[in-house]
Amino acid sequence: MPGYTPITTDTLHKIEEAVGSGHVILEEEKLIEYGKDSGEISCKPELVVETTSSEQIERLLRLANIHRFPVTPRGLGTGLAGGSIPMYGGVLLSMARMNRIISIEEDNMIATVEPGVLNLDIKEAVRKKGLFYPPDPASLDTSSIGGNAATNAGGPSCVKYGTTRDYILGIEAVLPSGKKIKAGVNTRKGVVGYDLLRLIVGSEGTLGVITKLTLKLIPHPPAVTTMVAFFPELTSAMKAVTTVLMRGHIPCAIEFMDRKCITLVKDLLPFEEMDTAGTFLLIETDGNPDIIERDIEMMGHICLECGAMNVIMAPDSVKRARMWEARREVSLRIENSFPLYIPEDVVLPLGKIADFVACLPECERAYGMKIFSFGHAGDGNIHLNITAEDRKSRERVEAGIKYLLKRVIKMGGTISGEHGIGITKRCYLPLELSAESIRMQKEIKGIFDPSFILNPGKIF
Amino acid sequence: MPGYTPITTDTLHKIEEAVGSGHVILEEEKLIEYGKDSGEISCKPELVVETTSSEQIERLLRLANIHRFPVTPRGLGTGLAGGSIPMYGGVLLSMARMNRIISIEEDNMIATVEPGVLNLDIKEAVRKKGLFYPPDPASLDTSSIGGNAATNAGGPSCVKYGTTRDYILGIEAVLPSGKKIKAGVNTRKGVVGYDLLRLIVGSEGTLGVITKLTLKLIPHPPAVTTMVAFFPELTSAMKAVTTVLMRGHIPCAIEFMDRKCITLVKDLLPFEEMDTAGTFLLIETDGNPDIIERDIEMMGHICLECGAMNVIMAPDSVKRARMWEARREVSLRIENSFPLYIPEDVVLPLGKIADFVACLPECERAYGMKIFSFGHAGDGNIHLNITAEDRKSRERVEAGIKYLLKRVIKMGGTISGEHGIGITKRCYLPLELSAESIRMQKEIKGIFDPSFILNPGKIF
Repeated sequence: MPGYTPITTDTLHKIEEAVGSGHVILEEEKLIEYGKDSGEISCKPELVVETTSSEQIERLLRLANIHRFPVTPRGLGTGLAGGSIPMYGGVLLSMARMNRIISIEEDNMIATVEPGVLNLDIKEAVRKKGLFYPPDPASLDTSSIGGNAATNAGGPSCVKYGTTRDYILGIEAVLPSGKKIKAGVNTRKGVVGYDLLRLIVGSEGTLGVITKLTLKLIPHPPAVTTMVAFFPELTSAMKAVTTVLMRGHIPCAIEFMDRKCITLVKDLLPFEEMDTAGTFLLIETDGNPDIIERDIEMMGHICLECGAMNVIMAPDSVKRARMWEARREVSLRIENSFPLYIPEDVVLPLGKIADFVACLPECERAYGMKIFSFGHAGDGNIHLNITAEDRKSRERVEAGIKYLLKRVIKMGGTISGEHGIGITKRCYLPLELSAESIRMQKEIKGIFDPSFILNPGKIF
Repeated sequence: MPGYTPITTDTLHKIEEAVGSGHVILEEEKLIEYGKDSGEISCKPELVVETTSSEQIERLLRLANIHRFPVTPRGLGTGLAGGSIPMYGGVLLSMARMNRIISIEEDNMIATVEPGVLNLDIKEAVRKKGLFYPPDPASLDTSSIGGNAATNAGGPSCVKYGTTRDYILGIEAVLPSGKKIKAGVNTRKGVVGYDLLRLIVGSEGTLGVITKLTLKLIPHPPAVTTMVAFFPELTSAMKAVTTVLMRGHIPCAIEFMDRKCITLVKDLLPFEEMDTAGTFLLIETDGNPDIIERDIEMMGHICLECGAMNVIMAPDSVKRARMWEARREVSLRIENSFPLYIPEDVVLPLGKIADFVACLPECERAYGMKIFSFGHAGDGNIHLNITAEDRKSRERVEAGIKYLLKRVIKMGGTISGEHGIGITKRCYLPLELSAESIRMQKEIKGIFDPSFILNPGKIF
């Protein structure tokens, strides 16, 4: 990474002129705040630009190329991999104030939004028109749609509905050169030219700053119902997951949590079966009311058949809400309980999950770490929350992580299903991608951003 | 496009050495055959290589870089836009013999296949295991999965299930440099690095030769049912389409055909209502038997409410098969009926379709052409089959097409939803994409293929 020029008073004036001085933040406290995400790495930017228009971004990026300072775009800082950390200082470009829902077109079943809108705000706005925006990262009430797009965010509903990428039809983005382009379409289909849309979406803010998004919406499912199944251990629970899917059920969530996680959020979990369960599955299905009733009942039978100790059908809304609260709260509890906390989110082919989780205890012993696992069993995406009692054991724990990730890849899996690479997983990239693949990706970065001014130091 | 070197006897020997002489075809008749697709452009290659392994392709592409001859990959030649035509001669690389289904993993719900396998053969093989590969281009019994991937093929089922891109989890591809890479994953999710998978898929064979594909499968729907609705004209039919979708129905096909098309395939259509109908909708829905019964009935009511003259519910399997035969046959009949035939496949936002089709008669008069329209009403993808009685009117007809495509873009649509750009739509590319977008795409082509040896002359 070539050296950047610190932002001088003269450059600062030019930035203020380009974006308006009311959009520039220099207060120390704010700089520290904007230099963090939800992971453990932080770096203070030299200044923050709170943008409200794509024209400001165009001017800012042109200046960055001239004066050679880095620009790091940031949604709402809920990432876990350091993707929005300004690791070389420079300008932190906050998208938080570009937060308008521009339009919801009921007849075209699309919404056009700015990147700073909360995921949940979009869900609620389109819901009022009978429409549904499915992607639901755990951070849905705190993360922005622009951040969701930059990382191709997932969530529990992916097992039925797919990830963020599947709901972005088109974008407007400012390229590192300061030039704005449209990519993708406003329609359900489109095959005109190379897929720049899906290249920029998921690029963790390194190929362009997304300034507008056209989202695909679908009819809102009329009803949803829930089931909780308790199992003695993970192997039988995972057997139930694959059986449910292979018998043709398509639930809109199949979440699991291991015993260690259960213990940590037991106060939130509203069922006494949690005292003895080794793990549980939280299964939901949505659609027509009478169909989903029957569907969930059949899935309940499958769970019992695969070794569930008990199943609870259609718990009341209070209990359902508490289950989800526990599910969303668990990673925070883990993080707060251990001095060393490293969140990984591997994905395995469905049929390999049981084998993989069976190897975890041995790995914990070998590397002196404690692994809390929970996540999206239905698409093989397991959040491995790796912890240790002592930050000094970091090196040993990282060796353990490397061992685990290699095992994941050997079993046909991938090292990240949701969090992305950012800063924290860069060292593991060559475990999964070949030198030639990385070389091509770096060349793509090079043509988008020859001066390396946009979000440098990420992914590679 | 820089000049290529004709293939000399010496180069031919090197090619034979690289791929094995049994894989090289030089017969004039065969060269002519391989120089065609399903559109009207053809160009004879200097020779054909029928490959059976990725190693042959690696060696061939390395030779192409050294001796500067173009290589044009070809699936089974069912494209309509000239994407597989060897317009600069050189080597036509036929993928037809790389046609093994390598594995179907029931528990992981994936299939791994070579690019030359027929779409229909995959559908039938996975069906035997209770699984479903949804994408269904009209050419499904004659087109290869590699060609489907290169063009991101669509089909009637896209309205519910999405396009080919949504079912390719990972690929192996030989880059123009002769180096092989893997892109994508074997799992339901993956966010590691830039999305080279979706860059190569849909690139019409210009960025890499796909040699292996990992396909996502889903449970096979237990049943499907059909409905035919007859309307006096297109506007009320399109109103029914948007109403069906907005009321929460997700059919697995909503096809339409205008009066001109109906007249052309009337002998195949098994209903007397066809005599007087201005247009019809062929709607299908799949899922649980009792649900789809109710679902199709509700959609029938919507059609009547929107002005349908009559609806026929659940016709017997013979009639259903004939409806689909007519639907798949219609473009061939149009092509055979007119000296000038130009297939376009625009996509409009759903709510704009009725307005758009209303403008067609005026356009026909103004430009002296006859437009046959049919297609995938449910995702706004209309096949406009543009014809004229005289090939000499081509220039005027092309002006008419340009006028129509501009109108499509103005209404928020895109100029191609399925066929791609290939050779035939290159001149229209700047109508839709900005100069900056095209520039970036050409730069991407440049880093993948600096000597421009892979499928030159396409898209740009």
